[in-house]
Amino acid sequence: MNGADALIATLVANEVTACFANPGTSEMQFVAALDGVPAMRPVLCQFEGVATGAADGYGRMAGKPACTLLHLGPGYGNGVANLHNARRAYTPIVNVVGDHATYHRQYDAPLNSDIATLVKPNSIWAKSADSPDSVAGLAAEAVAASYGPPGGPVSLILPADSAWLPAQGEPVIAQTPVRPAPAAAAIEAAAKAIKAARNPVVLIGGQACLAAGVREAARLQAVGVTVYSDTFIARTPRGAGAFAPKRMQYFGEMALAELQGVDLMVYAGTAMPVAFFAYPNRPSVLVPEGCASLTLVERSEDSVAGLAALADALGAPKEGPTQALALPDAAPTGKLTAYTVGASIARHMPEGAIVCDDAVTSGAGVAAAAATARPHEVLALTGGAIGIGLPLAIGAAVAAPNRKVLSLNGDGSAMYTIQALWTMARENLDITVVIFANYTYRILNIEMQRTGAGDAGPSARKLLELGDPNIDFVSVAKGLGLPAVSCSTAEAFETAFAGAMAQRGPMFIEAKI
Amino acid sequence: MNGADALIATLVANEVTACFANPGTSEMQFVAALDGVPAMRPVLCQFEGVATGAADGYGRMAGKPACTLLHLGPGYGNGVANLHNARRAYTPIVNVVGDHATYHRQYDAPLNSDIATLVKPNSIWAKSADSPDSVAGLAAEAVAASYGPPGGPVSLILPADSAWLPAQGEPVIAQTPVRPAPAAAAIEAAAKAIKAARNPVVLIGGQACLAAGVREAARLQAVGVTVYSDTFIARTPRGAGAFAPKRMQYFGEMALAELQGVDLMVYAGTAMPVAFFAYPNRPSVLVPEGCASLTLVERSEDSVAGLAALADALGAPKEGPTQALALPDAAPTGKLTAYTVGASIARHMPEGAIVCDDAVTSGAGVAAAAATARPHEVLALTGGAIGIGLPLAIGAAVAAPNRKVLSLNGDGSAMYTIQALWTMARENLDITVVIFANYTYRILNIEMQRTGAGDAGPSARKLLELGDPNIDFVSVAKGLGLPAVSCSTAEAFETAFAGAMAQRGPMFIEAKI
Repeated sequence: MNGADALIATLVANEVTACFANPGTSEMQFVAALDGVPAMRPVLCQFEGVATGAADGYGRMAGKPACTLLHLGPGYGNGVANLHNARRAYTPIVNVVGDHATYHRQYDAPLNSDIATLVKPNSIWAKSADSPDSVAGLAAEAVAASYGPPGGPVSLILPADSAWLPAQGEPVIAQTPVRPAPAAAAIEAAAKAIKAARNPVVLIGGQACLAAGVREAARLQAVGVTVYSDTFIARTPRGAGAFAPKRMQYFGEMALAELQGVDLMVYAGTAMPVAFFAYPNRPSVLVPEGCASLTLVERSEDSVAGLAALADALGAPKEGPTQALALPDAAPTGKLTAYTVGASIARHMPEGAIVCDDAVTSGAGVAAAAATARPHEVLALTGGAIGIGLPLAIGAAVAAPNRKVLSLNGDGSAMYTIQALWTMARENLDITVVIFANYTYRILNIEMQRTGAGDAGPSARKLLELGDPNIDFVSVAKGLGLPAVSCSTAEAFETAFAGAMAQRGPMFIEAKI
Repeated sequence: MNGADALIATLVANEVTACFANPGTSEMQFVAALDGVPAMRPVLCQFEGVATGAADGYGRMAGKPACTLLHLGPGYGNGVANLHNARRAYTPIVNVVGDHATYHRQYDAPLNSDIATLVKPNSIWAKSADSPDSVAGLAAEAVAASYGPPGGPVSLILPADSAWLPAQGEPVIAQTPVRPAPAAAAIEAAAKAIKAARNPVVLIGGQACLAAGVREAARLQAVGVTVYSDTFIARTPRGAGAFAPKRMQYFGEMALAELQGVDLMVYAGTAMPVAFFAYPNRPSVLVPEGCASLTLVERSEDSVAGLAALADALGAPKEGPTQALALPDAAPTGKLTAYTVGASIARHMPEGAIVCDDAVTSGAGVAAAAATARPHEVLALTGGAIGIGLPLAIGAAVAAPNRKVLSLNGDGSAMYTIQALWTMARENLDITVVIFANYTYRILNIEMQRTGAGDAGPSARKLLELGDPNIDFVSVAKGLGLPAVSCSTAEAFETAFAGAMAQRGPMFIEAKI
């Protein structure tokens, strides 16, 4: 048994059983060790941003970490953007970052870099296993650390000699940390404040937005407390049978206008809402003036217990309101828009579907129609780094192989990690990809005005428009191994999407909106 | 004039006139400011790894920095791997990293991250312009810092409010630092040691491998000093009319076998050679036992002056040996291999071509044939992070619009930054892309054995092989807007390549080897 064997044995013993990988020379022992442990599923991603985004999707759905296998500093670097998103989703991920042999580092060979510094901003735990006998113990520590609470990506640096030298001992089992329930005083204070308020709001996020949390939050709504959720949520139920909290608006001034008159905001599993970006002369904090703020449940605490206790304290009924099923009667016709796409999705998306949403400006059209569709779950872009929609779907499909996965993407977003399509084909994952092709960074055309930057001239337009040439996404997707179709009308999309839902396996649809 | 205007004015005043960009909301003022300064050429890259690799290619060819425009921490993160390569190439690059407004950072909005820490490992200078009036001065400082010597990427963090608030003053001009000549004592010591040695070698790298340095190094060869170059060189001439130093072998044991009997190694523009990776029971340092080491020119010093002075001290003639032109007589026929591809390239590549080499195991076939081809230059992968061959070509073509650019790529390498093809199409760059499609990480199949990891079983093979499905690169390239052709025979490649050389504009060739 060498260090690599010890690492994989400990990972599997701690229920880490999926590895999203793009290895290099320094990771060859890890790769070889996989052959001895069929319980660990290796998934090759031809770019590390795919691997880290997939690990995020897996972690959100499985409730436990996947590992990634990344090639030194540059391999980790390629994964940074989606690890930023995972950090913002509080998703447990164990990154295994290969490094030069310990004794080789001093020579500063071409691939050498300061990995320890590079991993810091997006790791809630990071250590280097500088001897083979340290590997198993640190791997167990890494898994435990990834759970937080509230969880996040961790980085275990694995020097090549720690992987290839003999290692002793049995797999080390880590204790999974438990989220503490919030203090009784916090519940009492919140209940008292809510009773005293004219117009109280509870804002839920993170763990509070999982199915159990949303159920408890619905009970608050039943006794007149308005429930909002964060704008971007790692994972939450949507559609029939689920309670639908209001959603904090993306643009700050709209959020504040909607919250006007609210005199108390209570946070559960999240914190004070702030604007996604700053704009000249617009507010950063999205709490109305004079409104009191109060934390019911910290992100690290048990939101379900906290919300349930608050609902009990307020004398709420056992069940709150839920959405009734309401599907569009007729197939949409005419011009293809984000809203007709949404209608087709609502009509045909099966119960239990997982929607990975990186569709930016087009996402609203789907959200509106899907609000009363068959029960499904939504995984959103939590960190604002576009390019997660395709990888997230890979991870979700690996974690939940019996559920249909939808990946919704802006064309600009999809291009960041387009390599993901190949992994979908290779693993024959049950994913339907929709790309909203409008050949522009639409959001930036809006933001250009909001930031006061004015109208785009020729140079600026070169950086905002994605046409010239328009990408033929069907050609790209077919080249990467997926069946693919392009739709320019609502009718064509309806047919294509219904067909995709009626079969298993990966399918690609370009929606020219 | 706002901070963004001041920034661009100062960049242009310091001859930074190309901007490889992928902007977001926090960079809208910079984007708008471009409209006022036509001297700055904006080039949109639909992924930041393309932008940073292009800036590297530009800097290598122009001898001055381009700037990049990157969207907060995740945007920079996407560019890390190619900035690692640029750091190893000592290429001047000015990264402009947009950030939240200074007053907004405290709220830790979703896209907030620790940019200052993230940029550290791959920046030789990094500062944040936290007030609009600091922007111009820091921009000038950034440009100067990027030149080193020996140069490298710098990071200027630009908060959104520093960009949108009014800024005072004129553009600030930076003094470009000069490389000092090495001390006379170093020249004397080297000359004395070389005269006393039985079998001396001079190892050149970095600036010493540019045309002027290679010419001086050839003079050393003329007086019996064997000249080697580093294995991977940022930029160097090749083919007829150039001196061809020996190249340090990639695999350490082969390098050491070749150097057996060498009793003195003298370094010019580089340092002691080390193995690219460590392997069990193989040496890290590639200097034979008992061989003396001596530095003639530090990387920060003037290698041309140092080599010339040494050649003078050794009484070398004014001119050293150069390669004679020798092209393959006949068009290659039969099975397509890296060597037949090399023969076709040697036959048709025009004088002045720039070859961007990220072809890993297939590169040797081209190097062999091109050694005596028409005069050209080669830009290699200096940092080992594959995925540079396509972006590098973009930068080279923007910097040298009248020269034919060749981009040679392994299929695994090309997939890292395949988005680059779109930028080539949009900018109508005179680049011929060759992808060697062998549907495997060939190098890793070799490394698996060398690291002692043994034979690949089913799990390991899943991570080493790129087939299942084979990517149809022609379909991908056409989808991204390039004319594209696939070749399976030497004859087909010969025809396709000759055709590409006879026209201007981007062309894509898949070589199925």
